[in-house]
Amino acid sequence: MDEKLFVIPLWADLIAVGLGGVQGALFASGFRGQRRLDLLGVTIIGIVMGMGGGLIRDLLLNVTPVTLQSNWYLITATGAALVGMLLAGLFRRLNAVIVGLDALVIGLFGAFGTSKALVLGLPLIPAVFVGVCSAVGGGILRDVIMGLPVAIMHVGSLYAVAAGVGCLVVATMDAFGADLVVAASVGVAVTTAIRLLAVMFDISLPEQRALHLRKVAVETSAIPIVKQ
Amino acid sequence: MDEKLFVIPLWADLIAVGLGGVQGALFASGFRGQRRLDLLGVTIIGIVMGMGGGLIRDLLLNVTPVTLQSNWYLITATGAALVGMLLAGLFRRLNAVIVGLDALVIGLFGAFGTSKALVLGLPLIPAVFVGVCSAVGGGILRDVIMGLPVAIMHVGSLYAVAAGVGCLVVATMDAFGADLVVAASVGVAVTTAIRLLAVMFDISLPEQRALHLRKVAVETSAIPIVKQ
Amino acid sequence: MDEKLFVIPLWADLIAVGLGGVQGALFASGFRGQRRLDLLGVTIIGIVMGMGGGLIRDLLLNVTPVTLQSNWYLITATGAALVGMLLAGLFRRLNAVIVGLDALVIGLFGAFGTSKALVLGLPLIPAVFVGVCSAVGGGILRDVIMGLPVAIMHVGSLYAVAAGVGCLVVATMDAFGADLVVAASVGVAVTTAIRLLAVMFDISLPEQRALHLRKVAVETSAIPIVKQ
Repeated sequence: MDEKLFVIPLWADLIAVGLGGVQGALFASGFRGQRRLDLLGVTIIGIVMGMGGGLIRDLLLNVTPVTLQSNWYLITATGAALVGMLLAGLFRRLNAVIVGLDALVIGLFGAFGTSKALVLGLPLIPAVFVGVCSAVGGGILRDVIMGLPVAIMHVGSLYAVAAGVGCLVVATMDAFGADLVVAASVGVAVTTAIRLLAVMFDISLPEQRALHLRKVAVETSAIPIVKQ
Repeated sequence: MDEKLFVIPLWADLIAVGLGGVQGALFASGFRGQRRLDLLGVTIIGIVMGMGGGLIRDLLLNVTPVTLQSNWYLITATGAALVGMLLAGLFRRLNAVIVGLDALVIGLFGAFGTSKALVLGLPLIPAVFVGVCSAVGGGILRDVIMGLPVAIMHVGSLYAVAAGVGCLVVATMDAFGADLVVAASVGVAVTTAIRLLAVMFDISLPEQRALHLRKVAVETSAIPIVKQ
Repeated sequence: MDEKLFVIPLWADLIAVGLGGVQGALFASGFRGQRRLDLLGVTIIGIVMGMGGGLIRDLLLNVTPVTLQSNWYLITATGAALVGMLLAGLFRRLNAVIVGLDALVIGLFGAFGTSKALVLGLPLIPAVFVGVCSAVGGGILRDVIMGLPVAIMHVGSLYAVAAGVGCLVVATMDAFGADLVVAASVGVAVTTAIRLLAVMFDISLPEQRALHLRKVAVETSAIPIVKQ
């Protein structure tokens, strides 16, 4: 478990953080009326999207969060959020660019997360899990903080699956002895490609199938209740 | 603080994880319409319910999450979620079985959490707290991710109290020198029994009492505001 | 990174925890009707507000949570929550006192968080970040658990900014060689003063400004979708 063996280059990490920050600010700037955010709110969402994935990864791995070991992460995330906010009107016209960047960001966070987990000695499946949490965790935190339905939970998303396949590629290549930098690069490419194809061809997961005998009403209680 | 002294047997841990995963999937499968989840969503809730308690426990104790040290936890939680989804229609007919399993699950997670905390040297009260967080944490995460009111927060629940009493029994027996395996077993039995009795006799906590001088309106601001 | 060098006196820590617990219970007691909480619910919110900031700080710093190393934290938070609940009617008449206490609490949590981060070797900006998370984290957790909009996210709050300026003062004074106890004391005073002035003069942050070319509708999807 020698952490020093694994160094994601700072520039690569900061690119992911910066792109995440821009994404977050673009998202947060879109709200109007009651949900309208002030400067601070948009910045918080930018930081959450830029740094949330890395924080969740390091919490799950029980290592000191690397995003808090240098001033650059917060500077990058905050600066990116401000740029994203100012350019929100412009960026929204370049939808294809945004989707491409976002696909790249989940690919980067997923590959970094899985690689770091493997270096720290985690088995294959948990390493993939940590990668996926790293890729989608920022978005979950954002939705929870903004009081929105968590996007990846509902019918129509193939978001986490794209991250999962990429992370699985990284972990499998590593298991077969491939160099981790090569594996991570392939993983980023796979996740990005799946995500872009899913968006282009509007693919989603099948709905759940159950061996239902009858229709079941919506339940909101924590557990079913037996009335006597 | 020698972690090696404390080993919850893998099979016991996996039973708790599996039962939690089934519970989560049964719960998540019950949603229809707007809130309907896809395959991924149901699986996520299964993983959250099966592994959330253990993750929260290990985060609070600042130890490496044991659920990520072996492939079996994620395999069990995911498999259990898929089984739970397929059999949702059937299981809903066996309400008593579900309630019994759920009571057992919070008993197991609570006793494991408190035991691990005690072995790591925490004092009695924080050890009970860690056990309760471990027992109810998965359900809180589930509700937050699904955008539901957090079940244990509202009038009518005696859920956390059942967990708390069981954990207190574990910690108290440990303080009097009892063997931890015996203490944990008694704790599981106590929590399960209280939970089942509460469901059977429909017992809930008293509402809060305040020395009110007048009715107070619902407040949603972070802090009261003094207008000048 | 010798943790032993940094000891927040237990009495100071417990004052912050106790005041936070009272705040939480006062807040939670204000709900009526559907959202009405039982005894347990109010106590949970008291614990979240009293101990949440310290737990988040220690998770971010990857150190064992100090709030779980002694029985006193949970006893204080729980006791404070019960006192807050009983006296809710009375305290609501003393609005100015509540606002003052709350300003003091965020000052204390912020200064403690930044000081501890600096002692553990974090650079200036992350140390400020940890302080702010420590100051506002309890409130965010409370809002998420209660299913409320997160208060610091919306137009009109200068809450986190007050904490941020105070934490920046602590970190800057430390960088210029000031004694940490002195720096922390000044930080508490600065945060408290800004917060009180903001409340008194009803100051808020400017709304975000964007170089918009056209109005953008509210978006709730995770990412923009390119339809082909």
